[in-house]
Amino acid sequence: MSKFEEKTIHTETIFKGKVIDVEVDEVQLPNGKTSKRELVRHPGAVGILALTDDHKIVMVEQYRKALGKSIIEIPAGKLEQGENPESTAARELQEETGYKPGRLNYIVSYYTSPGFADEIIYLYEATELTKATEELEMDEDEFVDVVEVSVQEALDLIQNERIHDAKTIQAIYYVMVQHLKD
Amino acid sequence: MSKFEEKTIHTETIFKGKVIDVEVDEVQLPNGKTSKRELVRHPGAVGILALTDDHKIVMVEQYRKALGKSIIEIPAGKLEQGENPESTAARELQEETGYKPGRLNYIVSYYTSPGFADEIIYLYEATELTKATEELEMDEDEFVDVVEVSVQEALDLIQNERIHDAKTIQAIYYVMVQHLKD
Repeated sequence: MSKFEEKTIHTETIFKGKVIDVEVDEVQLPNGKTSKRELVRHPGAVGILALTDDHKIVMVEQYRKALGKSIIEIPAGKLEQGENPESTAARELQEETGYKPGRLNYIVSYYTSPGFADEIIYLYEATELTKATEELEMDEDEFVDVVEVSVQEALDLIQNERIHDAKTIQAIYYVMVQHLKD
Repeated sequence: MSKFEEKTIHTETIFKGKVIDVEVDEVQLPNGKTSKRELVRHPGAVGILALTDDHKIVMVEQYRKALGKSIIEIPAGKLEQGENPESTAARELQEETGYKPGRLNYIVSYYTSPGFADEIIYLYEATELTKATEELEMDEDEFVDVVEVSVQEALDLIQNERIHDAKTIQAIYYVMVQHLKD
């Protein structure tokens, strides 16, 4: 049993969507009282830190309706049913950027918003990139521009909030730690 | 206008909760077609990287219903209506750990899940910590244990997934970059 575990008394399903499901759980707290937890269920996703041979980070610019603005992010995508994260990473990288990874190494995984969502991101590092000869189709409601930036350019983009999401900033910090260690 | 901007045709409110609201927007895509976007609205939050004088990171262990397990995180909390992030950071740090920050520096902000949520986290670094004489009450449905860990211990906790969320891993990477630069 986990510390401070909350037992589920009742689950109410609020919404079942294409990307997320929403439920409200009534729970019993460690002190015996009850409370409600609003929960978002998500299939999980991958993020890909793709590095070119000349040490640029491959990113995509895309519009994010939730934020009401376009931001520059590392390539990413949701896990498909039954697909392992490594295959998702290779597929999404090629769909969004046209690159195939020669090497694909798992870095770390993390929950994005543990207070209300179970979305987990598996972060991969892709190197030895080659341009794919065949083009993979993106989702039909997805529009992205590919950009390749140096670490210094990425830090400037964080500063002016053109890069503004957790997985991308995480990936950039990761690159900095590796560089500083070398 | 943002690149690839999606115009809202219609907004359907699905749920209004204590922590999140959920809506489905019908949007017009850049190619003129329409699609639906499932969106979670969140008030935003702060995370606090609190460092003791002997270079330990102050963390809290708590149960996360969305994940079905307890994890170890940096202190964090939602923005209250009209409260600026810096005040939230000082308040949440004291509520959860009993520490008052002598210095509080803004590090970076980021969206946690730009694909479906507008939750933003403002990350602060708190140093010159002193134990508060008065105790601030936590939310009545909140139960946490305080732990203080070195960077090496934090890396081990990431490895065995006792630390397993974006803001905490981000904060640890940030500390590593600062250490390696020195």
